[in-house]
Amino acid sequence: MAKRGVHRAARAPVRKHASVGREYITGQGVRLLGRVELGQGVRIEPNTVIYGPTKIGSGSFIGPSVVLGFPPKTELIASIAQHRDIHDMPDRTQLIIGQNCIVRPGTCVYSSTSVGDSVSVGHNVMVRENVQVGGHTLIGTNVVIDGSCDIGEYVSIQTGGYVPTNSKIEDGVFLGPHVVLTNDKYLTRKKAHLLGPTIRKGASIGANSMLMPSIEIGEGAVIGAHSLVLSSVPPRCIYAGVPARKLRDVPSDWTISLLKT
Amino acid sequence: MAKRGVHRAARAPVRKHASVGREYITGQGVRLLGRVELGQGVRIEPNTVIYGPTKIGSGSFIGPSVVLGFPPKTELIASIAQHRDIHDMPDRTQLIIGQNCIVRPGTCVYSSTSVGDSVSVGHNVMVRENVQVGGHTLIGTNVVIDGSCDIGEYVSIQTGGYVPTNSKIEDGVFLGPHVVLTNDKYLTRKKAHLLGPTIRKGASIGANSMLMPSIEIGEGAVIGAHSLVLSSVPPRCIYAGVPARKLRDVPSDWTISLLKT
Amino acid sequence: MAKRGVHRAARAPVRKHASVGREYITGQGVRLLGRVELGQGVRIEPNTVIYGPTKIGSGSFIGPSVVLGFPPKTELIASIAQHRDIHDMPDRTQLIIGQNCIVRPGTCVYSSTSVGDSVSVGHNVMVRENVQVGGHTLIGTNVVIDGSCDIGEYVSIQTGGYVPTNSKIEDGVFLGPHVVLTNDKYLTRKKAHLLGPTIRKGASIGANSMLMPSIEIGEGAVIGAHSLVLSSVPPRCIYAGVPARKLRDVPSDWTISLLKT
Repeated sequence: MAKRGVHRAARAPVRKHASVGREYITGQGVRLLGRVELGQGVRIEPNTVIYGPTKIGSGSFIGPSVVLGFPPKTELIASIAQHRDIHDMPDRTQLIIGQNCIVRPGTCVYSSTSVGDSVSVGHNVMVRENVQVGGHTLIGTNVVIDGSCDIGEYVSIQTGGYVPTNSKIEDGVFLGPHVVLTNDKYLTRKKAHLLGPTIRKGASIGANSMLMPSIEIGEGAVIGAHSLVLSSVPPRCIYAGVPARKLRDVPSDWTISLLKT
Repeated sequence: MAKRGVHRAARAPVRKHASVGREYITGQGVRLLGRVELGQGVRIEPNTVIYGPTKIGSGSFIGPSVVLGFPPKTELIASIAQHRDIHDMPDRTQLIIGQNCIVRPGTCVYSSTSVGDSVSVGHNVMVRENVQVGGHTLIGTNVVIDGSCDIGEYVSIQTGGYVPTNSKIEDGVFLGPHVVLTNDKYLTRKKAHLLGPTIRKGASIGANSMLMPSIEIGEGAVIGAHSLVLSSVPPRCIYAGVPARKLRDVPSDWTISLLKT
Repeated sequence: MAKRGVHRAARAPVRKHASVGREYITGQGVRLLGRVELGQGVRIEPNTVIYGPTKIGSGSFIGPSVVLGFPPKTELIASIAQHRDIHDMPDRTQLIIGQNCIVRPGTCVYSSTSVGDSVSVGHNVMVRENVQVGGHTLIGTNVVIDGSCDIGEYVSIQTGGYVPTNSKIEDGVFLGPHVVLTNDKYLTRKKAHLLGPTIRKGASIGANSMLMPSIEIGEGAVIGAHSLVLSSVPPRCIYAGVPARKLRDVPSDWTISLLKT
């Protein structure tokens, strides 16, 4: 190639650290604030901010411009009122990220949340507090998971999905792109307990569909694309439409989960 | 806990400043470019970029990896053509953020916009120029508000909502998750004035619904989830469906706004 | 204006560079990792991370908190396993960004992708590997374009659009806000080749609509808002509804593309 433009030397842009028998690497502009525990071989790319207490398992990769350990709203407001650093607030609960996870640029995961091993997180994802994410789960780009949700193993939440407070998604569930779950039937116009849907093992929700609050999608059920699901759906049925109605049973050659290898 | 991993000292990661009788705090990697006025007790977290002129009211919190005062397109293009820094362009109009606001990580707010007091902004939000946001309003994660919009007080725009150029949202309105407003009936195929909907006081729009350009949603009206609203809706009615039709009047025990406390 | 608050001097926050006859500017906290070629007059705003090999054409503007040249998944996993810096992996394929492009804050573009001249990219956009984007195309805020897509010239993808792997969008196409394309008919429940739609020249898709996998939208066709398109649509027809049905032919006074000036 012709010598044109600017050629930066391919110098290592990172600092290598060794402590208590562990090695990890942080890029330029990484801010580790408070107590941050990093497993063997963890790598943190440039301009990422981590508020302690946060623990990241060995072999995990945290991309550039990520924010980890961000505080829940009440804690944030208290930290502002008390003029205390976020990581210095009392009674903070640790963010735990498992081993061999990948967290891509622009993502934010709150404190008091726990992410299993081998979880893959896309870009600009937001996962709030008190969320449990099982191992081997995929969380796609722009997905939002609000507080107090329980997400199983081998779940796949595709790009742009929305999971509100108090939702439950069991193992092997697939949410297509831009699936929206809801938890408030009255749009704040009446007092109501906020309760999201429960999606049982291996169910699949088609792209752009939405589920009403507190309903249950049965094990292995399938919801067609762009559907509005008003009420619970039995196991192993295919529903679709606005509002969604039963089309037929799930064919026997459709597996429950191709994600689980 | 056993001594494992890396334990960073919980040292204050921030610089404290005092000037003209005011104190504020900036984290590492914060870039204040040009004239940035910070009220008493403002806190700016690491790796945030603020282009002046920007004014932030006392007690406000700006999260990490935020961008404030970004220029409108014509100004940006002029700054590129003239090889001038953004904050150094003439005739820039100030971004004003009120007191006691919270702006979360990854959000960008343009210059020439004004945000009231006690506004709470989620993650990865984008608010363009010439937008007025009233006090006590909530702007959820991933929400986009394009230019020249008027947003009232005590409004709630939930996760993933889209508000296009020239929309008007009055006080106490609730937009559920992934609500899409539009402003171009002809999809750029015919010349048309771009005009978004007007949503009157206390109306509520269900999740995943969309509104056609230039229509009006009456005071206190309710739109069901996943609806397509083709034309204006009278006050205090419930509409739903594709296309949306009247279901009934809003029950008398549904309040107009639970947000206003 | 009264002297209040904190007034930062309007000092240039950037470093100017000159090399091999070219000049470019980088803001504070910019990380250029590996081989990054910058054309004449390129400007890179603060806290942006660029992984080489990346080449940016003259006159282009890269906003703050952007990530360029991020690696595809297999390459990322190999770099973690081998403890090698991303930009230092062998056989990396260059990201090429053309001349006079604008890339706004929070966006990430992968390596092995090519973006034409005069392309305008919004905020928090994600464009994966092996994507070709033609000149003068607009990619709106929060848009996600997955790998191996072919996007023409003068295309407009509005806010929140989703384009999955193996999609093809020809010149002058308009996708309204929150349009969702899909590529997997079986929701991972059966093995299937992932194939997105093909959208022919000058077609327009209304807001919040979604297209099923592998279908073709004919040249100049129009899809109404909030529609579900199950099968291919002939040229120059208007389709709408759930599922979408033909309404009529496109009126003769609707142009094919107003974007092309």
